[in-house]
Amino acid sequence: MRLVECVPNFSEGRDQAKIDRIMSIVKADKFIKLVNFESDADYNRTVVTLLGDPDKMIDLILNMVNVCLNEIDLNKHSGEHARMGAIDVIPFIPISGVTMKECVAYSEKCAELINKTYDIPCFLYAGAARFDSRVSLPSIRKGEFEGMKEKIKEPDWKPDFGKAEIHPTFGCIGVGARDFLIAYNIDLKTDREKPTKSIARAIRKSSGGYQFVQAGPVYLENRKHTQVTMNILNYKKNPIYRIFETVKMEAKRYNIDVIGSEIVGLVPKDSLIRSLKYYYACNGLDFPVDMSLTDIVNNVKKYLLFRDFDESKIIENFL
Amino acid sequence: MRLVECVPNFSEGRDQAKIDRIMSIVKADKFIKLVNFESDADYNRTVVTLLGDPDKMIDLILNMVNVCLNEIDLNKHSGEHARMGAIDVIPFIPISGVTMKECVAYSEKCAELINKTYDIPCFLYAGAARFDSRVSLPSIRKGEFEGMKEKIKEPDWKPDFGKAEIHPTFGCIGVGARDFLIAYNIDLKTDREKPTKSIARAIRKSSGGYQFVQAGPVYLENRKHTQVTMNILNYKKNPIYRIFETVKMEAKRYNIDVIGSEIVGLVPKDSLIRSLKYYYACNGLDFPVDMSLTDIVNNVKKYLLFRDFDESKIIENFL
Repeated sequence: MRLVECVPNFSEGRDQAKIDRIMSIVKADKFIKLVNFESDADYNRTVVTLLGDPDKMIDLILNMVNVCLNEIDLNKHSGEHARMGAIDVIPFIPISGVTMKECVAYSEKCAELINKTYDIPCFLYAGAARFDSRVSLPSIRKGEFEGMKEKIKEPDWKPDFGKAEIHPTFGCIGVGARDFLIAYNIDLKTDREKPTKSIARAIRKSSGGYQFVQAGPVYLENRKHTQVTMNILNYKKNPIYRIFETVKMEAKRYNIDVIGSEIVGLVPKDSLIRSLKYYYACNGLDFPVDMSLTDIVNNVKKYLLFRDFDESKIIENFL
Repeated sequence: MRLVECVPNFSEGRDQAKIDRIMSIVKADKFIKLVNFESDADYNRTVVTLLGDPDKMIDLILNMVNVCLNEIDLNKHSGEHARMGAIDVIPFIPISGVTMKECVAYSEKCAELINKTYDIPCFLYAGAARFDSRVSLPSIRKGEFEGMKEKIKEPDWKPDFGKAEIHPTFGCIGVGARDFLIAYNIDLKTDREKPTKSIARAIRKSSGGYQFVQAGPVYLENRKHTQVTMNILNYKKNPIYRIFETVKMEAKRYNIDVIGSEIVGLVPKDSLIRSLKYYYACNGLDFPVDMSLTDIVNNVKKYLLFRDFDESKIIENFL
């Protein structure tokens, strides 16, 4: 079974009717499994997690671009999360029977077809990047939809597919291939962005922290508290518990409580087991040889304060 | 005042008579301030911290090479710490009125004179490295004295000064320029090297940890416990308290107590203040506008469990 994960992010997280119309295309697809999707009103963005055959995946992505082109006008869009396209980013992730190199080829094919069909410029990023300066999606996206209008005309920022002009309502897209990453957010009981930022800086690579952590502060208007929002690019070398505990340690100096944490999208079972082993060992408990998904869910809620989490977020549930 | 720090490490930490004869040369020098020296029997190594004018510093270093040539035969040396020379490493560190670039030039001059005078091959490392593969001293030193006999003959490992042959009793030296670093060790109440190594891996850059930390495990025969031994290359981005607390957090899963920590050589006052501010804030205490060196010493003993520490290890004491 040839299986890739694909996690397109589209720039609508508030208008339920629009979200429904876009997701109906995804739900109607007979070949691709919709693992999960989450709309965030603060971010004004929806993260869609898909599993399936890579060629069938590209077919669905093209349909998603089509519907987003009709539904979303970035000139009218605002939200906490940086974005440059109505579909902002399309990563291909090898899961089973597919190599990273093949995922690069699929991302190239996908970008080429999107551009050919809809005249939307595409940038290849992460494992598919053709320039060092394009490995990091935030570097490409800097300036966002509004800034990309001029930025894309610079010789350094000519898109990998398409002409040097963003689509007037859709913008442009980052298409790439990458290893599995965990999108993880830690809730802080504060509305102060400054200490939240200091805590993010303590853990993220770009400020001297853990090698495989990208993190930043964000204030969630709806929830009335801040988060350290992050990607963990390698959960084996930077396990969830270590990041969670380091954030607790740093939060202490600001007298801020860590009140929860959340996974966006999917996690491998192994990433949770590794963290639970830490807490079991700290408490002098033997770790069971085989822990059920139900027990894993209960334990991560207890020790890592996961909220809005259930078995459907564990990738093994779908394999 | 033009001031550099220089921290030559020589490979004798057990034979007091030899150490005394080597140190008498250093103590007799009228121009260079001996800040501190520490012999470690487990490491079989002495770390000497010097402050002074860079040209006078080179004069003293040449005298030290001369005496070590007479006193130390690496064919008869063993110890916990990796080494490739009777004087193993000579770093020049800008302190005041001297730039990093000038320190590179001083290290080159020093290496050239050592080679010319004593026919000892020298490798330029860190800021003075002429090849990417020589930035890291451990990469150069890999194989140690014994392995360097053959390694130095490989085209990739031709020394920067001298012929491709180590000195038969002295070995070879790494000479370089670098920013101020803190040599810091954390004591674990265990004799088990495996968990000590896992803890070191959690915090060090090379295994995914903090960006400016180089760390490894070591067992101290004399003290009968292990240490996480480390260099902190940037104490502003990776403050001491954060590393200390992360080690405590990781040690918990192995049910190992952190029983102390120690500075080898010197630290800037600022590095201690930064860490004490963390503990004061955690305890809801206001941090005093000006803390005396005595109070700093007492506080780092209390919060960071520093042992064998006093004002003479704070660099501001000498300025």
